[in-house]
Amino acid sequence: MAEAEPLKVALLGAGVVGSQVARILIAESATLAARIGRPLELVGIGVRRLDVERPGVDPALFTTDSAALVARGDLDLVIEVIGGIEPARSLLLSAMEHGASVVTANKALLGSDMAALSHCANANGVDLYYEAAVAGAIPIVRPLRESLVGDEIRAVMGIVNGTTNYILDKMTTAGLSFDVALNQAQELGFAEADPTADVEGHDAAAKAAILAGLAFHTEVRREEVFCEGISRVTETDIAAADQMGFVVKLLAIARLTDEPDARVIVKVHPTMVPKTHPLASVSGAYNAIFVESRDAGQLMFMGQGAGGAPTASAVMGDVVTVARNRLRGASNDMQTGYTTRGVAPIGDATARHYIRFDVADRPGVLAACATIFGDHNVSLQTVQQSHLEGARRQAGFEARLNVMTHEASETDLAAVVTDLHLASFVGDTIDVMRVEGH
Amino acid sequence: MAEAEPLKVALLGAGVVGSQVARILIAESATLAARIGRPLELVGIGVRRLDVERPGVDPALFTTDSAALVARGDLDLVIEVIGGIEPARSLLLSAMEHGASVVTANKALLGSDMAALSHCANANGVDLYYEAAVAGAIPIVRPLRESLVGDEIRAVMGIVNGTTNYILDKMTTAGLSFDVALNQAQELGFAEADPTADVEGHDAAAKAAILAGLAFHTEVRREEVFCEGISRVTETDIAAADQMGFVVKLLAIARLTDEPDARVIVKVHPTMVPKTHPLASVSGAYNAIFVESRDAGQLMFMGQGAGGAPTASAVMGDVVTVARNRLRGASNDMQTGYTTRGVAPIGDATARHYIRFDVADRPGVLAACATIFGDHNVSLQTVQQSHLEGARRQAGFEARLNVMTHEASETDLAAVVTDLHLASFVGDTIDVMRVEGH
Repeated sequence: MAEAEPLKVALLGAGVVGSQVARILIAESATLAARIGRPLELVGIGVRRLDVERPGVDPALFTTDSAALVARGDLDLVIEVIGGIEPARSLLLSAMEHGASVVTANKALLGSDMAALSHCANANGVDLYYEAAVAGAIPIVRPLRESLVGDEIRAVMGIVNGTTNYILDKMTTAGLSFDVALNQAQELGFAEADPTADVEGHDAAAKAAILAGLAFHTEVRREEVFCEGISRVTETDIAAADQMGFVVKLLAIARLTDEPDARVIVKVHPTMVPKTHPLASVSGAYNAIFVESRDAGQLMFMGQGAGGAPTASAVMGDVVTVARNRLRGASNDMQTGYTTRGVAPIGDATARHYIRFDVADRPGVLAACATIFGDHNVSLQTVQQSHLEGARRQAGFEARLNVMTHEASETDLAAVVTDLHLASFVGDTIDVMRVEGH
Repeated sequence: MAEAEPLKVALLGAGVVGSQVARILIAESATLAARIGRPLELVGIGVRRLDVERPGVDPALFTTDSAALVARGDLDLVIEVIGGIEPARSLLLSAMEHGASVVTANKALLGSDMAALSHCANANGVDLYYEAAVAGAIPIVRPLRESLVGDEIRAVMGIVNGTTNYILDKMTTAGLSFDVALNQAQELGFAEADPTADVEGHDAAAKAAILAGLAFHTEVRREEVFCEGISRVTETDIAAADQMGFVVKLLAIARLTDEPDARVIVKVHPTMVPKTHPLASVSGAYNAIFVESRDAGQLMFMGQGAGGAPTASAVMGDVVTVARNRLRGASNDMQTGYTTRGVAPIGDATARHYIRFDVADRPGVLAACATIFGDHNVSLQTVQQSHLEGARRQAGFEARLNVMTHEASETDLAAVVTDLHLASFVGDTIDVMRVEGH
């Protein structure tokens, strides 16, 4: 039997993830060939600079002309692990227009422009796979796209950023302040020198957009994701949550509003989660995605959300699947027939809320506060009043209220906070945190 | 545009799962049609008896002649939720020979005869999907078969039987004996009147065979799975595990022996798992699958392992995928090019072991015991000696030893136990439990 013609593969990027992908393509070529039914041939690696030591890879493979590489016209598959919007976007569009299927780990690009990429894949009859773009090694795209496609997903809540999970973990277990925990994370290499994208939730928001699109069969753009980071989370927040049986996690949340005309709520914010909830025990740099659906009920997926080898694992799973599709002559258009739901304004999002503020300790004040909540249709689940002492005490405001509301909309809650601020018997600082999970 | 010809679907079984599948096929037909790109038409439901009330389903659909139903010749898809080997096996083979793709939730059948079914699917160019057969609603088949197909799975460990997990949970949290916990589970409907298949591990063993086959790209039969149930787990075992920082779980375990000629270890047994391990906190009727792979590292998948709606969710995910494959004219032969690895004898399996036995409390005894372990190449991690009092004490054997070994083979460990039994300074009862996870 003649040796079958190999499938031609180009790799864009040779950094932390790219070097692992190259390693697997080279070292595991026999296994991959057996699983695909045809060998893969790595024909080129697009890089920014050639003067970098890259052991184990034939130097002749590297090129700085990625645009020419993806436009060769004989490629079966292009793997993109550069990250960022450009030049990744142009390169992938060109690759697909030249007939290649695409595997990408680029969350920023998919979060900002899934529509154009999907459309280009469909128009050219090629595959666009991106398991590695959300939650690293955790298989979540196939479960949402395929395993649960006969079900109705109600909500997706994910710990999708390891840096913030590490920082919140340290604040919780070691009682550190945000600044000290961030410094430790930076020293250990868990946080970048400029940590903005992580701690302000931008990275999580890009992933939230992708998750919401997968879960609800619609297109969601990064700009439509409500986003609040963890830089304003205080030790007091963490301690108060702990005392009430909660931990604080930065969650990416996507859910539907009630029918009819269900729209997508999609948001990233620090969240109080009951200690008994499966997400509460996901610690350190691990990621986890929690899914609630009509028939399957509650599901959780946990694993490493970043790192070269874990991300490469997800990339390679896509590579094998796309290569098999290629051999069968069938691209797997999983977006067919999807509905277009709008994204609801954040004001329509509902959640339980925890609110902490100080009040004057005199008769009638508690009733006046309760009236403010009631005026805006926010009903109270628990109210806890404690007497403040010493340094924690602000002149005229001797009592602290810890309030847990029932489910209330962001709009109603904001109106409550405004009215509390205007009330003479309420101190200046009003802290609010959203609560999820049962 | 003319209405597209619907895909014809037959359902075998209308019990707990079947009635949920029928409900979804009927109530969600518009959504399913949108996701598939073509409507599904339920053309018949094979049942044993017609004289059963089945509200919401057109009575004309039911037939007791399932053999004729699957042999119609115009079916696109047959869904089998009868369970058991026959007549399910013959019906599915006939369905595939008549050109229909198959979705099944039948773990017993797949655990005993995956080879014949896979071969029949390939020979007839149809799909065989079975997400619901392992761990109910938890998406595990696609993650193992596709997401991790570019990686190397090292081990799979699963809590795949809700009944035994519930019983062990009750023994742990409420201090119940096995018999009392089993009775409670039966009263609550979590255990069958004849609980043998669950408590003796047979159900878990069938799932272990399927998981091992998926993880290691080979065929494993139920008869090749080493199987030990939980009926001999005592309150003392649970308490001793707790005291050492472990919980007891019934695990289905599949891993490879070392290269070269790596073979599959596949087994089901009560296992001590560290309390810090992700599997330790999976409680009640939940299932979970823990995966270790070369590149992805540690992953865990958690969800409901049984029940009508959760199982139907997994079935319907397969139905949509198979229907899409059908429309593309491409069956998804995911078994291509797989290797055939043998199953290793259980004696080759290695694990840490916990051993508890009573000894005479006199000088030299501990050294003599240690010598027995050393003679069989079993090295000790910790030895804890305690003095027995009152009723717990057997004449002549006043001290209890709690021993934790390093990794040792079952063969070596069995030799140790035999020699301990022969030693005059060791009491009659020697309790052993395997330990997994770090």
